[in-house]
Amino acid sequence: MTTNDNKIFLSESQLPRSWYNIVAELPFDVPKPLHPIEDRGVEVDDFDWLWPLECLRIELHEGKYGTDPWIEIPPFIADVYRRYRPSPLVRARALEKYLGTPAEIYYKREDLNPAGSHKFNTALVQAYYAAQEEHSRIHTMATDTGAGQWGAALAMACETVGLNCCVFMIRKSFEEKPYRRYLMRMAGAEVYPSPSELTDTGRSVLKDDPDNSGSLGIGMSEAIEFVKEDPGRRLALGCMSYYAVLHQSVIGLETRQQLEQIDRTPSLMIGCVGGGSNFTGFVAPFVRDRIGGKPIEFRAIEPDSIPTLSQGEYRYDWADFSELTPRILMYTLGHRFVPPPVHSGGLRYHGKTPVLSALVKNNVVNTRTYSQQEVFDAGRVFLKTEGVLAAPESAHAVLGAIDAAREASNTEKTPVIVFCLSGHGYLDLKGYSDVLDLDTSN
Amino acid sequence: MTTNDNKIFLSESQLPRSWYNIVAELPFDVPKPLHPIEDRGVEVDDFDWLWPLECLRIELHEGKYGTDPWIEIPPFIADVYRRYRPSPLVRARALEKYLGTPAEIYYKREDLNPAGSHKFNTALVQAYYAAQEEHSRIHTMATDTGAGQWGAALAMACETVGLNCCVFMIRKSFEEKPYRRYLMRMAGAEVYPSPSELTDTGRSVLKDDPDNSGSLGIGMSEAIEFVKEDPGRRLALGCMSYYAVLHQSVIGLETRQQLEQIDRTPSLMIGCVGGGSNFTGFVAPFVRDRIGGKPIEFRAIEPDSIPTLSQGEYRYDWADFSELTPRILMYTLGHRFVPPPVHSGGLRYHGKTPVLSALVKNNVVNTRTYSQQEVFDAGRVFLKTEGVLAAPESAHAVLGAIDAAREASNTEKTPVIVFCLSGHGYLDLKGYSDVLDLDTSN
Repeated sequence: MTTNDNKIFLSESQLPRSWYNIVAELPFDVPKPLHPIEDRGVEVDDFDWLWPLECLRIELHEGKYGTDPWIEIPPFIADVYRRYRPSPLVRARALEKYLGTPAEIYYKREDLNPAGSHKFNTALVQAYYAAQEEHSRIHTMATDTGAGQWGAALAMACETVGLNCCVFMIRKSFEEKPYRRYLMRMAGAEVYPSPSELTDTGRSVLKDDPDNSGSLGIGMSEAIEFVKEDPGRRLALGCMSYYAVLHQSVIGLETRQQLEQIDRTPSLMIGCVGGGSNFTGFVAPFVRDRIGGKPIEFRAIEPDSIPTLSQGEYRYDWADFSELTPRILMYTLGHRFVPPPVHSGGLRYHGKTPVLSALVKNNVVNTRTYSQQEVFDAGRVFLKTEGVLAAPESAHAVLGAIDAAREASNTEKTPVIVFCLSGHGYLDLKGYSDVLDLDTSN
Repeated sequence: MTTNDNKIFLSESQLPRSWYNIVAELPFDVPKPLHPIEDRGVEVDDFDWLWPLECLRIELHEGKYGTDPWIEIPPFIADVYRRYRPSPLVRARALEKYLGTPAEIYYKREDLNPAGSHKFNTALVQAYYAAQEEHSRIHTMATDTGAGQWGAALAMACETVGLNCCVFMIRKSFEEKPYRRYLMRMAGAEVYPSPSELTDTGRSVLKDDPDNSGSLGIGMSEAIEFVKEDPGRRLALGCMSYYAVLHQSVIGLETRQQLEQIDRTPSLMIGCVGGGSNFTGFVAPFVRDRIGGKPIEFRAIEPDSIPTLSQGEYRYDWADFSELTPRILMYTLGHRFVPPPVHSGGLRYHGKTPVLSALVKNNVVNTRTYSQQEVFDAGRVFLKTEGVLAAPESAHAVLGAIDAAREASNTEKTPVIVFCLSGHGYLDLKGYSDVLDLDTSN
């Protein structure tokens, strides 16, 4: 491989052996969760019925998770990772040429993963921990999903480890995005539209508003109630949890090796943020570098209609609608926030994971918002130049990179812009069609 | 890289510099096309209004195309290939384990290409030849498409070289598969449902049968008529042409290098056949090895409801419905064949490209047919084990490999089964849903 190649690969033997546990090294504290109601911290016993124990330990920064920067990747996980990882890092030469920018632009391809996004990286681990648990016999993982990237990843993860999977899918997506629902079903999952008649939360919301189209907060409450009914069920979380961030650090660790291989240091790293897991996992090892003195800038992109980091409050809030989850300190639009009907896929969540919120609060990460139209236009430019169809979520990161490249000028040192392409958009073509007006007769 | 890796990569410098022109080396003749009506061979002048000149020269085995086994890949094409090629060859360890087979199974991933299938490999070249032509000023490429893999690839290819693109999409797919239509539109193409009111063929078919759902033969006739109206238009062909076969030899050439890199010789190579281009390009360099003495078996898979190679006649026939194309010697079900309403994507065509037909006729390639249900079940097994969603077309090849692996026994030498995963199935989930009954409430 030479630096003239577009694609920078790592061999499977270069797959990271450990995840990077950023909270153990940050120079500031990432506050732990508080009990949902009582005025105290959360103990493992409070939620051992809800989360797989190992996930709970990570979430509460227990033992090694509070102190060790490196957490070994279990051999089973490493074996499955090796089926699709390390993922390629690609130099966007065609996009650079189109923009006429002096900057180099690279993107990390998480769109090639099973189920088509970064989500499988953590879904697999959560399902594996649940299947391995000796504490109790877990047979089912439950979760909520919006556009379905997360639900599809969890369905495939559960099938990989031999668990059942139950997904509460936001009703609007359930009806309008049947393809991701088919994919989940094909991988053996049960899929319910949320709000549903299966839970108190769902029934209560539907009683007040029979046409309620759902939210991630409501879906999570439903999944939690569903778990509570049977000791063999546990909850999986796509992006709000710290364990998802920890697992997604594999993205950043690979990216770091790939850039080293071609002798590059990033000047700017960009990602889209829903709950914050792909972005935070992507930048975490580079935050370490920045703390060590390297001048790297980090930029988290959100839709302007869901500006959690840019305009939300930094305070304790619940992750779900019904106040069943621990309270966490984060930027939030409020746990009963109902997002506007925009096509931003998984970026419609009211809060951002505490570690990312803390990075923003401490001015390590800055933020930018974009409108739906300009994001989808950027997706079209990316398809035209790089031949890759980005998910609407990821198109936010694409636009972030385009924007940064346009601002770049010829300086002494070539700007190196690196972004995470978190997922593909094949199952989001209806959204592209709506925004770009593709469904005309011609 | 070691032989323990699942994924066998080539660097961009290992991208083949030439396509392999199999007709120049076959020990038997592949007869050239005949005039559509007159009792004579086709001359370049007969069809220089229809095809880009260079494509026509390839099709007629003119000059170097009749004599040289190696045709240099133009630098522009090599540059674009390098954005996504060489594609990975992957050892299907999880599938092998699931099957408990002693065989090694490998698959060549053409599903990661722009537009999601092998089709872009030739679409790009056809559009490039048209854009480069000095003979006349070509501004538009027209074509027909079934499920839309080909149309999407051509749309993206035309955008890459700066031409317009016009696609006649089988009406049934136009209505039932809107996502591929959106993708074509997103890449700037015009898309018409075929039969359409734009052409004599379309109008005549609709007059007799207003609900006609279309066929590839009708679509091709419409595209040809459309081209005839304007000297700046040319026809692109996805799989029936020899030039498509020539360009797809890049698949086989890479696969051969990848297998050499891990010191393997295939015992059996498998692919699905629609027109035959991905299969023939995939096996072509290995046919050379077999002629040189290596005992390699080749197996072309078709749907049992469209058994062209297995049950068709070997005779001269037209490629299109209206008898506008040259007559070619091939296995055919008749150019007015209307395929049954099965979900086999691009495998619904009445004929198979002459070079593949000749390989079958001369017992170099054998064939097998499978039912729709077992093919989709195989697709589900592949998703479950390898985490990859195969196109319905490609699921035929998956089943071919599963079948062969099940038949494999422990012999002195480990059987090495290699198949071409020609495309992904994200835009075919409706078909999976129909056949696997995924659209129930749960």
